Amino acid sequence: METIIGVAAGILTSISMLPQLIKVIKEKDVENLSPYMIAILLTGVSLWVVYGVMLLEWPIILSNAFSVLVNATLLTCYVLFRESR
Amino acid sequence: METIIGVAAGILTSISMLPQLIKVIKEKDVENLSPYMIAILLTGVSLWVVYGVMLLEWPIILSNAFSVLVNATLLTCYVLFRESR
Repeated sequence: METIIGVAAGILTSISMLPQLIKVIKEKDVENLSPYMIAILLTGVSLWVVYGVMLLEWPIILSNAFSVLVNATLLTCYVLFRESR
Repeated sequence: METIIGVAAGILTSISMLPQLIKVIKEKDVENLSPYMIAILLTGVSLWVVYGVMLLEWPIILSNAFSVLVNATLLTCYVLFRESR
């Protein structure tokens, strides 16, 4: 049961990052994005992956590994679009 | 040990939301924010709280409860600043 809740939670928090990513890629505008937020979040979700591995909880591992990917992409976009001004 | 990692991860992912919130409150500009992201994230972190309660893992419960608060505030800001145009 907790796995179902965990997977649902993981899918939702993962999906929630996609509109932001799509918006940034589409508009090539990172004005209102905070790079600090992305950097700290990247460190945080990486630690959640470690935590998930320690507890052997797959919902935690998978959703946070996905977050690492999204945030790394977002940070790359920030650097790229920021420089293009 | 996993509690330490979990708490560190929780603090980082919680802190990461604050610059975004401060930025939005300071600039009163929600242009680049995605309201869908905030709404889905709010549902997601609420489910993470339920998941944390089921596993009785305090790092999960506390950090996600904090995220619920931040995202609820962010959504309120979105509605307020959006309407003020």
